[in-house]
Amino acid sequence: MMAPLRVGIAGLGTVGASVVKMLQVNGADITRRCGRAIEVRAVSARDRDKNRGVRLDSYPWFDDAVQLAATPGLDVVVELIGGEEGVARAVCETALAHGRHVVTANKALLAHQGSALAEAAEARGVALAFEAAVAGGVPVIKALREALAGNRITEVHGILNGTCNYILTKMRVTGRAFDDVLAEAQALGYAEADPGLDIDGIDAAHKLAILTAVAFGSRITFTPDNVEGIRYITADDIRFAEALGYRIKLLGIARRGEAGSDRFEQRVHPCLVPLGTPIAGVEDVFNAVIAEGDFVERVTLIGRGAGAGPTGSAVLGDLVDIACNRFTPTLGFPVAALDPARPASLATRRGAYYLRLMVSDEVGVLAAVATALSVEQVSIERVIQHSRSADQRVPLVLTTHDTDEAAMQRGLATIRGLDSVGDHCLIRIERF
Amino acid sequence: MMAPLRVGIAGLGTVGASVVKMLQVNGADITRRCGRAIEVRAVSARDRDKNRGVRLDSYPWFDDAVQLAATPGLDVVVELIGGEEGVARAVCETALAHGRHVVTANKALLAHQGSALAEAAEARGVALAFEAAVAGGVPVIKALREALAGNRITEVHGILNGTCNYILTKMRVTGRAFDDVLAEAQALGYAEADPGLDIDGIDAAHKLAILTAVAFGSRITFTPDNVEGIRYITADDIRFAEALGYRIKLLGIARRGEAGSDRFEQRVHPCLVPLGTPIAGVEDVFNAVIAEGDFVERVTLIGRGAGAGPTGSAVLGDLVDIACNRFTPTLGFPVAALDPARPASLATRRGAYYLRLMVSDEVGVLAAVATALSVEQVSIERVIQHSRSADQRVPLVLTTHDTDEAAMQRGLATIRGLDSVGDHCLIRIERF
Repeated sequence: MMAPLRVGIAGLGTVGASVVKMLQVNGADITRRCGRAIEVRAVSARDRDKNRGVRLDSYPWFDDAVQLAATPGLDVVVELIGGEEGVARAVCETALAHGRHVVTANKALLAHQGSALAEAAEARGVALAFEAAVAGGVPVIKALREALAGNRITEVHGILNGTCNYILTKMRVTGRAFDDVLAEAQALGYAEADPGLDIDGIDAAHKLAILTAVAFGSRITFTPDNVEGIRYITADDIRFAEALGYRIKLLGIARRGEAGSDRFEQRVHPCLVPLGTPIAGVEDVFNAVIAEGDFVERVTLIGRGAGAGPTGSAVLGDLVDIACNRFTPTLGFPVAALDPARPASLATRRGAYYLRLMVSDEVGVLAAVATALSVEQVSIERVIQHSRSADQRVPLVLTTHDTDEAAMQRGLATIRGLDSVGDHCLIRIERF
Repeated sequence: MMAPLRVGIAGLGTVGASVVKMLQVNGADITRRCGRAIEVRAVSARDRDKNRGVRLDSYPWFDDAVQLAATPGLDVVVELIGGEEGVARAVCETALAHGRHVVTANKALLAHQGSALAEAAEARGVALAFEAAVAGGVPVIKALREALAGNRITEVHGILNGTCNYILTKMRVTGRAFDDVLAEAQALGYAEADPGLDIDGIDAAHKLAILTAVAFGSRITFTPDNVEGIRYITADDIRFAEALGYRIKLLGIARRGEAGSDRFEQRVHPCLVPLGTPIAGVEDVFNAVIAEGDFVERVTLIGRGAGAGPTGSAVLGDLVDIACNRFTPTLGFPVAALDPARPASLATRRGAYYLRLMVSDEVGVLAAVATALSVEQVSIERVIQHSRSADQRVPLVLTTHDTDEAAMQRGLATIRGLDSVGDHCLIRIERF
């Protein structure tokens, strides 16, 4: 039997505790699989006395996670602290500098520092593994980096944030308002006290940046410019979308450019997706990732995108790979071979749109709206005017045929200048 | 750069030709990924002159596939001949005996000889890789053997045969009869001239036997006793099922027994699954595999289960793993560590049932049927009698609460003995 794989765990939140528990519960099977044990040899967290639901007293304790990363006698450091800078970054950099494998669930760190960390790992000949950083327990990184490695991946898209999917599902089912459902999600622990990372799309954009790089073999480029969250979606929009045959999902979408292009699409925003498609049926906190390859065609992976068990499962998968000496370049390719292409501006998108306007119920409004769009060559597909009211604004809902984002935005700017138009909501329609 | 991985391909049907084509089209990317080329160094098929849509003239040709497997200078032999015995088996055994890695898409061979081949591979320290054997391009073997390796998998089920799923989908959408749709599928090339392997559930059972072994870490045990196909499903049954809130799918299902049990469930048969669940929405030729782990919970993988591109993609994934020196024991664990448990008899199943009986439209039939079931303690959930006719039999449809398979079969035997009862159709209901 080979020597055990010696693991240090930096960060003992729910995921860290879950990793320890999995090794305690399933350790014998894991040892049989790997022909060696995976042993926790060091742990670190801020509060030593907190009850984490798992026995920790047999593991050497470090108050300082960076010191753990630097301590001799560890083969792997598991970073579960989180955050794009600070301690988490120092832990990963220190571990790599000491020639230790790193396993992390930290999407924010990877989105910002992933390419540099990949270079550091490659220079030291160690693994930087991060299955847990994208879609929790769903093995999307392994699928893209290894299983589909014979394909040219042309597109990847998915539901990458469970909190947003939970909120949208709950709004649809109950008809309740966004703020109301968000407050409930916070009370239930499904959303953070500071929910911005989730509901403004940043968390999904972090994950999409990683996913794009792994799918296309490019450097990781996080760009906040192409990111919208779900704050502006109303229960009415969800209802109107259903009436039109669509469901509203917050999606991350990446598409390769034409051959030879130095730009690809990489964007996060709410989308109308056709009812009846698999992605429309992925509800509550579940995540989904769909990849399109030139030979495999469409592959769909669905599962829990967060939570102690699923995320811990992904960390364990990475540890088993390392214990079995199965190594893959961080982004699928050696760093020097990565594609230099970068995300294009969202303004270059082409596709259909859903537009809901709150308008005064008076003569000529529809004509003015239609004219503003036709001036920009935006062709209207359907119009629904839902109710009539003498003294308040009523929703005017329309969908367009495929058009350019820039033209649509120009048309919308004109419409927003009309006295008879109040609030609006513009959502992109995606038919995969 | 490392020396190229030298590959011999035995069998140049659509999948073999697709593997060659992928290496021609995406070879440069694959070389960048692996840090070495994957090169075809030998090919073999029966007919050298057939047009396969891909250039083959630069590869050494072998009329005899077993001779290819024995020829020096190959690192890997890809077996794409098919069949549970004969040449395919000889090719794999010969290649392993010569210390060459084997990649195969051959589920029939693995279902029958997989454990012995795994032993041979382990004895020689080479890989026996078979992602392509189950669910085509969907990376289920990699997910179970590697990504979910930290979990105890408690259940795996799925739609494993695209031909059956296509036929059931077509019957549902068109209302046409089984024989009619099968003939069309044969004309379109979706079903074989001899369709028995597919429509009698054998192909799905081959795949399930492999999947079960990989999920539970047990030896591969194929048992035809627990297998039913779809020949007896009528368009009426599909319609009645929809009215009851279900869709009919041919599923392979494997469930672990209680702790310490030496038996697990492993069965293939048509099922009623609730409408609205992801698996109910997997239509046409698509496959799906759902795994349940103790930490990751439910993971769902969907994609094309057959065809040149998807199956070739799975073969390439295995070749890339070998080129990158990523090795996994054939069944996840070393052979000596495999669980000795075996499939239990289908008679031990417990669950709900759908029963459709063609009955004479006369007084007392329902009473006789209900009595026959109640004698066996089978409790009826719903009854639907759809139409009335003086001179021909009418369908009587019922569903039961959970009961034992053996009790249900005894009740059915009594019912079949009634003069007023003609044809019947019994389908198990599964709510995952």
